[in-house]
Amino acid sequence: MRLDRLPTPALVLDFGRLRANCARMTAAVAGRGVRLRPHLKTAKSIDVARVALEGNFGGITVSTLNEAEYFAGHGITDILYAVGITPDKLDRVAALQRLGVRVTLVVDDPGVAAAVAERGAQLDTVFHVMVEVDPGEARGGVAWKSDALIAIGRALDEGDGTELAGVMAHAGHSYAARDLASVAAVAEDERRQAVGAAERLRAAGLPCPEVSVGSTPTALHAESADGLTEVRAGVYMLGDLFQAQIGSCAIDDLAVGVLATVIGHRRDKGTILIDAGALALSKDRSTAGMPLDAGFGLVAPAAGGAPIPGLTVDRVFQEHGLIRSADGAPPFDALPIGSRVRVLPNHVCMTAAMYDRYHLVDEAGPDPLAVADVWDRTNGWGPVAV
Amino acid sequence: MRLDRLPTPALVLDFGRLRANCARMTAAVAGRGVRLRPHLKTAKSIDVARVALEGNFGGITVSTLNEAEYFAGHGITDILYAVGITPDKLDRVAALQRLGVRVTLVVDDPGVAAAVAERGAQLDTVFHVMVEVDPGEARGGVAWKSDALIAIGRALDEGDGTELAGVMAHAGHSYAARDLASVAAVAEDERRQAVGAAERLRAAGLPCPEVSVGSTPTALHAESADGLTEVRAGVYMLGDLFQAQIGSCAIDDLAVGVLATVIGHRRDKGTILIDAGALALSKDRSTAGMPLDAGFGLVAPAAGGAPIPGLTVDRVFQEHGLIRSADGAPPFDALPIGSRVRVLPNHVCMTAAMYDRYHLVDEAGPDPLAVADVWDRTNGWGPVAV
Repeated sequence: MRLDRLPTPALVLDFGRLRANCARMTAAVAGRGVRLRPHLKTAKSIDVARVALEGNFGGITVSTLNEAEYFAGHGITDILYAVGITPDKLDRVAALQRLGVRVTLVVDDPGVAAAVAERGAQLDTVFHVMVEVDPGEARGGVAWKSDALIAIGRALDEGDGTELAGVMAHAGHSYAARDLASVAAVAEDERRQAVGAAERLRAAGLPCPEVSVGSTPTALHAESADGLTEVRAGVYMLGDLFQAQIGSCAIDDLAVGVLATVIGHRRDKGTILIDAGALALSKDRSTAGMPLDAGFGLVAPAAGGAPIPGLTVDRVFQEHGLIRSADGAPPFDALPIGSRVRVLPNHVCMTAAMYDRYHLVDEAGPDPLAVADVWDRTNGWGPVAV
Repeated sequence: MRLDRLPTPALVLDFGRLRANCARMTAAVAGRGVRLRPHLKTAKSIDVARVALEGNFGGITVSTLNEAEYFAGHGITDILYAVGITPDKLDRVAALQRLGVRVTLVVDDPGVAAAVAERGAQLDTVFHVMVEVDPGEARGGVAWKSDALIAIGRALDEGDGTELAGVMAHAGHSYAARDLASVAAVAEDERRQAVGAAERLRAAGLPCPEVSVGSTPTALHAESADGLTEVRAGVYMLGDLFQAQIGSCAIDDLAVGVLATVIGHRRDKGTILIDAGALALSKDRSTAGMPLDAGFGLVAPAAGGAPIPGLTVDRVFQEHGLIRSADGAPPFDALPIGSRVRVLPNHVCMTAAMYDRYHLVDEAGPDPLAVADVWDRTNGWGPVAV
């Protein structure tokens, strides 16, 4: 199969770019002497995970139990589920543990910590649980200086069905940074608060074996990892236009695009229609208000390479996208009806989630249009048989 | 299974509301003496299609070939694929026709019309093709007064592999109307342009058996159907907060919600965390700037019923949603960690697309938390074996 024959819209993944992105992050984190625990919430693919795990210790991060079950089913045995656990989800976790998978959970509430401990004892298992620390994102987590930190740590340590596994922080507010110095400052803040939380737990006589932090920007641009044991990051594997604008990658590093077919020309309106709309691209507008507002995506040749200057997907309907040109004159003749383009996404986590597979290409290979392989993805939240 | 045990996030569909929504549209369109061809791009489910087809002639509309194949595989034999066709998709269409399914296509370009005719002849089939007319949305289509209308019609009529099936228009710009008088005006404009196109084709000696128009707002609120043969609409089956704001339904008509679990309390920030974020709800913000800006959704009790006053999903991360209250004091005690809510979506087409099944409930039944049935959905663009 080749890209000029593949049914569209379809998700395309450049293998060389993926490998380079993974190698760059692995080297950055290894250079600071800590372990990288790749976050698979973006890629959701065992094949991508294998590339990301090259040179690393083998543990991963996930954002859903669906992902945990999928990756466990493919042989991954050390999984951090980095979203606050609630007791109703513990039966699925216990089922994975019975298969020999070490699943680490996070909590940010003393009552939940006690409930997890109680449920672990009922299920005759021990849940490995970290305390989630909020380094400033204002999502989940407790303040590193809070009484709740110690109360949760103690509940986990004392509970029959839990083991205190450490502390975990995610500086998602690094996405608001607009230069690398600001990213580095957020990274240092993330590190200091996580290490501060770990020191407070230890001073209270509690164990804190793991100190886990991370986001793609802070993982790449942190200046120190003192006191940390591991770093988590995920979107770096694929990259997107938002990450390119905040300095996590170059546009030429973006590994994923949506292959689309030109289905119409509106010369009267200055628009080229493609068969990739809101479902194929997502409605993420995270580049809105940034120096390069990409609309719903930049438009590159089907064979890959640099985006075509001035072209964006300006508007989306459920299954239609409208390409416009900054100069008002899109290249109708160069993009006839039936021809194909590759749309680079604002936010690859959202875009890739609409597809159940990647089509592997290699722009550096002998035929950039050749699909060398098809890699599956998991999506959704439903249980996966392990 | 009951909603208090179902893994979350999960898609919940109220059967009574679905049935009432479908009956209302069926009656509205039948009252004008034309046929309703339900659009299944929103529901993407054969079970929902069966409810929507009650009292109607049996034909449907789809937005992808994946949907066409899925519905054909479930016995639907009259399918309009309402996105401009390109020749590369014709092999899949021909395969459906060989199984006895009548697939109607749309084109808006004379060159494509000729190419479809040529490919039909090569494949030894006849494609049924409508001319797409743009009634003002500025997506696809030709102007009803254009020369292109006649040129396309003639190419389809004269081609060995095509049959001119009529004209088709979609007044998607009805979504910009903010009162029912404006919707009715858009509907009348849609009708007049479609009928005008049909009359021009007939005056040129060409056949025009079908005159097809529609969108949920215009299908509900049109005053006349003179000259039309069929009306298409889809989102009315499920309803959403955007449609409620433009007068297509009441909030109490919304049939779909996302069941989510409370996973955290941030009393310091005034937020309640749920396990439904950007993937579970979509990033659609179509109620932004409307009288009721619902953020990423309104929050109703898990058992259904009216939304809890003042609560919205104010912010989303990939797998986290943050609920805030208009008064700054969300009901922490009424929504403890581990409890559940049902989030009503801005744009159900986007939200439902993240799920592979509906969990059927009935708020009017003896147990509103009971899941009476599970209905599957199709998603994506890949071929479905028929």
